[in-house]
Amino acid sequence: MNGFTHTDAAGNARMVDVSEKSITRRVAVAEGYLITRPDVIQRIQTQNIAKGDVLAVARVAGIMAAKRTPDLIPLCHGLPMDGCEVELTCQDDRVRIQATCLIDAKTGIEMEALTAVSVAALTLYDMCKAVDKAMRIEGVRLLSKTGGKSGDYHADR
Amino acid sequence: MNGFTHTDAAGNARMVDVSEKSITRRVAVAEGYLITRPDVIQRIQTQNIAKGDVLAVARVAGIMAAKRTPDLIPLCHGLPMDGCEVELTCQDDRVRIQATCLIDAKTGIEMEALTAVSVAALTLYDMCKAVDKAMRIEGVRLLSKTGGKSGDYHADR
Amino acid sequence: MNGFTHTDAAGNARMVDVSEKSITRRVAVAEGYLITRPDVIQRIQTQNIAKGDVLAVARVAGIMAAKRTPDLIPLCHGLPMDGCEVELTCQDDRVRIQATCLIDAKTGIEMEALTAVSVAALTLYDMCKAVDKAMRIEGVRLLSKTGGKSGDYHADR
Amino acid sequence: MNGFTHTDAAGNARMVDVSEKSITRRVAVAEGYLITRPDVIQRIQTQNIAKGDVLAVARVAGIMAAKRTPDLIPLCHGLPMDGCEVELTCQDDRVRIQATCLIDAKTGIEMEALTAVSVAALTLYDMCKAVDKAMRIEGVRLLSKTGGKSGDYHADR
Amino acid sequence: MNGFTHTDAAGNARMVDVSEKSITRRVAVAEGYLITRPDVIQRIQTQNIAKGDVLAVARVAGIMAAKRTPDLIPLCHGLPMDGCEVELTCQDDRVRIQATCLIDAKTGIEMEALTAVSVAALTLYDMCKAVDKAMRIEGVRLLSKTGGKSGDYHADR
Amino acid sequence: MNGFTHTDAAGNARMVDVSEKSITRRVAVAEGYLITRPDVIQRIQTQNIAKGDVLAVARVAGIMAAKRTPDLIPLCHGLPMDGCEVELTCQDDRVRIQATCLIDAKTGIEMEALTAVSVAALTLYDMCKAVDKAMRIEGVRLLSKTGGKSGDYHADR
Repeated sequence: MNGFTHTDAAGNARMVDVSEKSITRRVAVAEGYLITRPDVIQRIQTQNIAKGDVLAVARVAGIMAAKRTPDLIPLCHGLPMDGCEVELTCQDDRVRIQATCLIDAKTGIEMEALTAVSVAALTLYDMCKAVDKAMRIEGVRLLSKTGGKSGDYHADR
Repeated sequence: MNGFTHTDAAGNARMVDVSEKSITRRVAVAEGYLITRPDVIQRIQTQNIAKGDVLAVARVAGIMAAKRTPDLIPLCHGLPMDGCEVELTCQDDRVRIQATCLIDAKTGIEMEALTAVSVAALTLYDMCKAVDKAMRIEGVRLLSKTGGKSGDYHADR
Repeated sequence: MNGFTHTDAAGNARMVDVSEKSITRRVAVAEGYLITRPDVIQRIQTQNIAKGDVLAVARVAGIMAAKRTPDLIPLCHGLPMDGCEVELTCQDDRVRIQATCLIDAKTGIEMEALTAVSVAALTLYDMCKAVDKAMRIEGVRLLSKTGGKSGDYHADR
Repeated sequence: MNGFTHTDAAGNARMVDVSEKSITRRVAVAEGYLITRPDVIQRIQTQNIAKGDVLAVARVAGIMAAKRTPDLIPLCHGLPMDGCEVELTCQDDRVRIQATCLIDAKTGIEMEALTAVSVAALTLYDMCKAVDKAMRIEGVRLLSKTGGKSGDYHADR
Repeated sequence: MNGFTHTDAAGNARMVDVSEKSITRRVAVAEGYLITRPDVIQRIQTQNIAKGDVLAVARVAGIMAAKRTPDLIPLCHGLPMDGCEVELTCQDDRVRIQATCLIDAKTGIEMEALTAVSVAALTLYDMCKAVDKAMRIEGVRLLSKTGGKSGDYHADR
Repeated sequence: MNGFTHTDAAGNARMVDVSEKSITRRVAVAEGYLITRPDVIQRIQTQNIAKGDVLAVARVAGIMAAKRTPDLIPLCHGLPMDGCEVELTCQDDRVRIQATCLIDAKTGIEMEALTAVSVAALTLYDMCKAVDKAMRIEGVRLLSKTGGKSGDYHADR
């Protein structure tokens, strides 16, 4: 066994056989940040109080992207998710993005949560780039996963 | 004018009218990093010498995602890209990802480059997560854009 | 509970958690109409006797759209449908469209049936718009759903 | 010439050759209605004042669907739209949906506008179906198109 | 120059830069065959006389797949096709499939024509596999291409 | 019963109801060939020794296409595959492509395996067409399927 489950003995890419795995309840939580200037955050928040569109659009984009994860990540299994939430929190100079995905399935749902965070961040970038091109996406990582044979995982906070 | 070109006066989301813009040659370069442990990098590189699949799969995923950017980013215009390159460089404890996208069009191609970087990073995460779940995606940002009325942009290095 | 299952307490969009729901057999039937002129219906029918293509293309488009419902409707769960039928009936000045979708799943399949009807109608419009631009899509609604905890529903005829 | 531009002489479906058409500025406006109960409209509006998510999600879904029109409507040409706006207006017992799409292209953009209206309506249905399953989508039609050789079209109001 | 335009000097995959190419009218024609038993052809033809659905569905599938070529072929440029026709001809023990695609663009449209043929053939297989699992897809090739700097190509007949 | 499970009594296309079928483990293996000149094979292999990209890209494209089969084949059920492998073997004047797909489901997975082979072959064509436009895709067929009520199938070798 080579540690990389997505390649065979010769190192060729494959979508691994999960048919022997058992179906368990799985939850994955991921987070990430869009770093910008405080005045951009203020504009997003003011906009948000009036209509909420910037955050609303990013939230929808994140959820829709989570559903399309197997289309984007080549060796990722297609999974009919049971639920998905994307939370956006404005902080001083950044928007914190947290995605929670859940499923009853043979394989985990970490990639869906990480994809939701990444695409929500990209959408925020797209909508704000006219006022700040120096924004950065930072700290996209898995916070926790539960369920599955490999056991639970909780990131250091 | 409200600074957010993707919302109307009432703050509602829209895909802005670019029909009056002129077609110019546009190039965008973005970068990002997948941070992991040195031993994971060594595994990727050894794998790479033998077959190159981990990096090859991430490269393909990044290019394909760039083409699907308008499907992912709600208010982004659909653009038939003229070219796209994704370069992956192994460093001590990270993989550096750089994407270059180009087009002759009325609107920029920054989102395509940033999406290519993000999805290549997610693919690396997916392929290596069996050996390291604590990987993080950091520093996803626009390095430069040229072409278009708003002028060129070069990030501070 | 706020009545809108697709928003959380703060009114933010989310894809609701259905993991506690039990899997039951579910059937949804939807209908709709493309209203046009009698001479357009005659052209469709004559065409249909010869080759059937206008109706055949709309039928295929409806079925394919049903499969893509989760890609189109942001907060809709992805469901591997067990079956789908789209029936098109020419009447005096209209085409009646009826879609039946079925599944064994935790969530209903109404959106798939309604999407099949809508996209079949749009396809009819597309194929006939050279002869009638005043066509209208009317009466798209759920006729019945069975299965699931919320009970059966049958529309007034 | 058989009046149906999407079939050949034998009635077989095809995607017609538009290469000889000239590129002109084209605008299409479509409308449609989601009919429901007054109390559902009040809930949408109250929700809207707080966060706007129901209408915001439908607006985003409509714009994204417009971009995917060629993927849904079999014989429709793929067009890189220059702009798209979806306006939602709450009335007594209904939501009025209006979509405006524009492009410089060889073919029209009516299908994009009609698809945006239909998918926005389906999204409203999806988000409100827990409180009203008897909602109907009515009056989806082209309001106007300008540009192109076949001349302008304005629906009777 | 290494002859493989889709890899850089180091052999890495990329989507080549075509921005310096000039826009010319391009036409590509491809063919292929689904080989089966004569009795299956007779069934398809009888079916065809009644309703034509098997051939109609395959034709639609081929056209829709041509439009999605850049989503399927990783390094293929996205092109808004000007037209596409898929012709299906029943012969003794086979269905001949021919696809013609055209465009005014910087890059060729061969892949669209070959993809249309392949997916039409796969669709025929799918619809007939209940009566013959031994069907084969044979002779998928480019018949001709015109336009572009590399000159015209006509296959040996 | 008319032998074509994808059409109803009147010959209209439909996606057949599989809800009464039982879930069994299913495996499908398909093969196909890209025929070219020996010198092209040598170039692919040399390229392969250096970086492996041509074969790696085709492998990824095949796996991703398998996941998108229900989007391409109109009446094919959507199935969350349990695994997929695409093997490419260089021979004298051809590349042999073999795809293995598996699933626990109510319906078979033959179309996924055949689609993986076809799209991998198309990708090879795309990447090598600058050096040989006369390449042909030949012998795409099902090698075996196991599982399901209709019994196992093994092609004559």
